[in-house]
Amino acid sequence: MFKRKFLLPILGILFMIPALVSAAEHAEEGAAHGTSHAVIVLAFIALIVVLAKIAGAVAEKFNQVSVLGELLLGVLLGIPVLFGIQFFDAFKTDEFVLLFSEFAVILLLFQTGLESDLYKMGKVGIPAFLVAIIGVIAPFLLGTYIVGPWLMPGLDSTSYLFLGATLTATSVGITARVFKDLKMLQSRSSQIVLGAAVIDDVLGLLILAVVAAIVTAGHVSTGEVAIIATKALAFLVASIAIGRLIAPYVGTFLSKVHAGIGMKMAMALFFCLGYAYLSTLVGLAPIVGAFAAGLLLDTVHFKRFRSPRLVREIEEAMTECTDNNVKVCVTKAIDEHRHRHVEDLIEGISQWVVPVFFVITGLQVNLSVLANVNVLLVALGLTVAAIVGKLVAGFAAGKGADWKSVGVGMIPRGEVGLIFANVGKALGVVNDEAFAAIVIMIIITTIFTPVVLPMIAKMNEKKEKVQATA
Amino acid sequence: MFKRKFLLPILGILFMIPALVSAAEHAEEGAAHGTSHAVIVLAFIALIVVLAKIAGAVAEKFNQVSVLGELLLGVLLGIPVLFGIQFFDAFKTDEFVLLFSEFAVILLLFQTGLESDLYKMGKVGIPAFLVAIIGVIAPFLLGTYIVGPWLMPGLDSTSYLFLGATLTATSVGITARVFKDLKMLQSRSSQIVLGAAVIDDVLGLLILAVVAAIVTAGHVSTGEVAIIATKALAFLVASIAIGRLIAPYVGTFLSKVHAGIGMKMAMALFFCLGYAYLSTLVGLAPIVGAFAAGLLLDTVHFKRFRSPRLVREIEEAMTECTDNNVKVCVTKAIDEHRHRHVEDLIEGISQWVVPVFFVITGLQVNLSVLANVNVLLVALGLTVAAIVGKLVAGFAAGKGADWKSVGVGMIPRGEVGLIFANVGKALGVVNDEAFAAIVIMIIITTIFTPVVLPMIAKMNEKKEKVQATA
Repeated sequence: MFKRKFLLPILGILFMIPALVSAAEHAEEGAAHGTSHAVIVLAFIALIVVLAKIAGAVAEKFNQVSVLGELLLGVLLGIPVLFGIQFFDAFKTDEFVLLFSEFAVILLLFQTGLESDLYKMGKVGIPAFLVAIIGVIAPFLLGTYIVGPWLMPGLDSTSYLFLGATLTATSVGITARVFKDLKMLQSRSSQIVLGAAVIDDVLGLLILAVVAAIVTAGHVSTGEVAIIATKALAFLVASIAIGRLIAPYVGTFLSKVHAGIGMKMAMALFFCLGYAYLSTLVGLAPIVGAFAAGLLLDTVHFKRFRSPRLVREIEEAMTECTDNNVKVCVTKAIDEHRHRHVEDLIEGISQWVVPVFFVITGLQVNLSVLANVNVLLVALGLTVAAIVGKLVAGFAAGKGADWKSVGVGMIPRGEVGLIFANVGKALGVVNDEAFAAIVIMIIITTIFTPVVLPMIAKMNEKKEKVQATA
Repeated sequence: MFKRKFLLPILGILFMIPALVSAAEHAEEGAAHGTSHAVIVLAFIALIVVLAKIAGAVAEKFNQVSVLGELLLGVLLGIPVLFGIQFFDAFKTDEFVLLFSEFAVILLLFQTGLESDLYKMGKVGIPAFLVAIIGVIAPFLLGTYIVGPWLMPGLDSTSYLFLGATLTATSVGITARVFKDLKMLQSRSSQIVLGAAVIDDVLGLLILAVVAAIVTAGHVSTGEVAIIATKALAFLVASIAIGRLIAPYVGTFLSKVHAGIGMKMAMALFFCLGYAYLSTLVGLAPIVGAFAAGLLLDTVHFKRFRSPRLVREIEEAMTECTDNNVKVCVTKAIDEHRHRHVEDLIEGISQWVVPVFFVITGLQVNLSVLANVNVLLVALGLTVAAIVGKLVAGFAAGKGADWKSVGVGMIPRGEVGLIFANVGKALGVVNDEAFAAIVIMIIITTIFTPVVLPMIAKMNEKKEKVQATA
């Protein structure tokens, strides 16, 4: 399987590592050696990007989502430190790497916002909302009041809060991907799960805002919780409303100045990073603002920006038209083009920026902690809570949907859970043990759905056949 | 001309500035306020990107290249500091901003390398080489031995060296753009200028390596200069040769792992930043390595990567085919696609990253220095040396080419001169006065060609007509 011709490129990739190792060791004196710290970090990030893309591709070959491969790569890169090699460890606390990582997660939530379609979600509104709410409350209670205090006694109550909060997330991306692979995207179960996952994103960000504020303030009071939740919700609603009002004008103005792709990208990033900044001004995490920016730009179709591709796409659409509906075809092509292109542009950056976030997150796992049996127990407890909590939510799907498919579809925690864990670690309420346990839980729940959902789909098919023949 | 509907978007863009101002003032205590320094800087960069794109577009509306608008924007943003407002000034020394700026210039040289076609250049090899050599030597001598010591007496000899070195550059981009606008790209004069400009890039990097080494060592010896020049040339030749050998294998390997665009981008960045790092290991500037990486990847056509666009492009090509040459058409479309796409991908990032470099460079100009009459004199002297030095080179173009067009075509210093000035500033041999003078010289030489070249083209046309009627 392993071909000899792969030897040279692998050597090619590896040949930089020893150089980087020595560079990292001399990073302090870097300037004297003529190598600036910035150049070393940039080369390191480039190395991580390539390794992350390889790891993601390997995961996909095992029918897993690429985020899993990236996360595991990060965990594996933590192995050398157990043997005293500090190479990757030196970078994981580097401020440039953390800046890049912060940019990556902001971009990820922006993209999530862009891909969330609030209108589509409305169609399965009520069951989706119920599934989302129960899917948030059940694991949160299980984590905060049972798994946390039971398996990790003696911690601060805010730590349990964070543990519970981490369990509330649902990863839209992973779920959507599995349903797509099963060709079930249009099924009612799938629609409910996707709707619920988007609502979960919003709820999760609200929970994160509340929990983070509680941790910072150091105490809990129902009144304060209400204030923070209201503030967060008000920010989301107001910023999206104001943004929707302003964005078309900004778009018109900027496209008059210059109608190229570069300007469009500049505008998208301006909203993304500007909103991320604004949300921190009202005391929320930057990702809340980035998500809001994505949601609002999703509906602004950048009408006035043209692109070199447009002409081509129109011509294509016309070849598919009959003479009678040429106008409809062309209009549709233009609309699709406008709509799709912001996401395409962001995808061009996020494709190589975002994986770095997952690798760095994996790298944050302190592997020596895994020898601690208690950590594995906590991980197990969290995983059970994570699975049970979302399966319970499946019951709320109601008629016309399969509760098992819905419940299992909600289980992956993926990137959102990782973001929670990271914020908690930065705030100091998620210790090394809890962090490692959370990462293990996320890995297991993320593998769970792609393995179990196809089995359920097969079972249901058989049942239908039996009923049909009966 | 100014429409009322532009009011809202302009307000929209401006509404962030006061918030950013207060944030910058509190940047130190940022963490306590819940706003991380990283988020502030990211929002600042997003603001700069939008402003830079606007400035670039405005310059284009005046038939100037966008780099000019970006540079002038940076200079203008330095005005508030004259009135005691430190906002932009606080960011210009921020390490995150400088990291971004470093990344931008590395990307710029990588792109320059990608766009340089060594084979094409070979066709006008000898005259282009002569023009390049004379166009480097003449302004270098004028700057180092006449303008520098004469107008800025009392400085260290290394400062004069750097002043001279800054005058050697030729900006391929600006020149190509003007010839393109005049529909003269295929003329012999144009070919010679473009060839000479590419050679100038290589020579310029060699000169930069030598001059920087001299500055660091503090003294000059012919033997050492020879060693450094040899080392730099050896690095360029060896790294390109080794890279060309390895890159196809790396490409094959990575495309087998995953054939998507993300991986292709990862590979391009890996080479770009890896080479930038390697070049610093042998004591050269990171941009030398980035340029080498661009040159070598230019010839590696990423054969095995596919892209969602490919199918479309093939279909298009087929519609243009007659039945007899379908195979030729399709092959050509695939080849073009492969070849073009790396540059397209990088363009997607560089379009919004690179302008930041020019704005920050403009911001480095200490405006209070401009009140100094001597600075304006130096700027004038440098500009005359810059113009005369390259006009002289035009004579080497020989028969079949117009020496005036060639000479004027070589005059723009553009981005390469700015890079030199920045390096010199970082090394401490280009003081505030010299830096301001260099920036003024670059602005004037960059405006010069787009204004004068069309005049020469018109004159030549008239002359031809007169000769034809005679």
